[in-house]
Amino acid sequence: METSAIEPWRTLARRELARSDPWVRLWAEDVRLPDGRVVRDFSTIEMPDHAVIVALTPNGEVVISRNYKHGPRRVCINLPAGYLEPGEEPLVAAQRELLEETGYAADEWLPLGDFFEDGNRGCGRAFLYLARGARQVAEPDSDDLEELTVELMPLAELLQATRRGEVAVLAIVAALGLASAALRGDWDQPATASSVT
Amino acid sequence: METSAIEPWRTLARRELARSDPWVRLWAEDVRLPDGRVVRDFSTIEMPDHAVIVALTPNGEVVISRNYKHGPRRVCINLPAGYLEPGEEPLVAAQRELLEETGYAADEWLPLGDFFEDGNRGCGRAFLYLARGARQVAEPDSDDLEELTVELMPLAELLQATRRGEVAVLAIVAALGLASAALRGDWDQPATASSVT
Repeated sequence: METSAIEPWRTLARRELARSDPWVRLWAEDVRLPDGRVVRDFSTIEMPDHAVIVALTPNGEVVISRNYKHGPRRVCINLPAGYLEPGEEPLVAAQRELLEETGYAADEWLPLGDFFEDGNRGCGRAFLYLARGARQVAEPDSDDLEELTVELMPLAELLQATRRGEVAVLAIVAALGLASAALRGDWDQPATASSVT
Repeated sequence: METSAIEPWRTLARRELARSDPWVRLWAEDVRLPDGRVVRDFSTIEMPDHAVIVALTPNGEVVISRNYKHGPRRVCINLPAGYLEPGEEPLVAAQRELLEETGYAADEWLPLGDFFEDGNRGCGRAFLYLARGARQVAEPDSDDLEELTVELMPLAELLQATRRGEVAVLAIVAALGLASAALRGDWDQPATASSVT
């Protein structure tokens, strides 16, 4: 099918309903759909971009932490992650956050794409990375609000922990899924003939 | 490590900064951290839960659509998905949305977990499903704002499309990753000895 035939919505006007700098801005947008209908007060949300890292040691273990997160309001397994500073490149933010939160650095960084948290509202965008050859080079030095304890866990075991409900945040699952694909060799694979028909 | 040793935050008070019923409520919370510090005006967001479905045909193809999403503000590949109605069971919502959006029903439904969109703010929660034996039983009958065109795409090709940037929303990536794991037999696998040490 012709992707170009799908038209975007047009934002006619938007009003800021609330802001909580620098974390959240809530907007009400008047949008015109391709069929001409106008929808009033469609909610959109701006939040800072963040980076999430699957850092893999030479032994095939992933650098994780277990800590309380206030979004899901419970203790869960998390990956090194953090907000991009203003103007900061996503990869630079990922490398900085890995080092600050865990004390690890890595030899080889593979971008796994960037994705919005919510299809309708937007919210934050997550830049996902696989970092291979991860090794501890320093002590963690994070000013995050959460108490972090760094652990190592094999990737296959992380999937089982996800199945048991120990992972609570979407970006963690997405990063683990794409990292698994990359490690199986399914990510760098060139497009096959069937994928361009 | 002792997960029980990790204490949650306590919400001391919260103020509603804005609401856009029934889609978004933005809150400012005063929270007490385990170390005794009090953080004022921590932003949290409430949004309705939604279901996302990887519906697989007997031929191994996934039911997708290409449509404009206003969160990422572009045309992208999406999976059947939709909000839970008040009081509706997530599985019932998933089955209803699959039928409404695509006209498909499925024989076998496997829950892949539920995950929050944002670790700090919360936002919506996504209930992910793998539906096997999917077949078209009706015409699509959706009242969504987006124009939907249903297509079929092999799961492996969807991963390549993700690599090319054609998927824009985190829940789609997460659902595809967990569905792939389930189809490889990595999801139902019992916990190994190493995972309980």
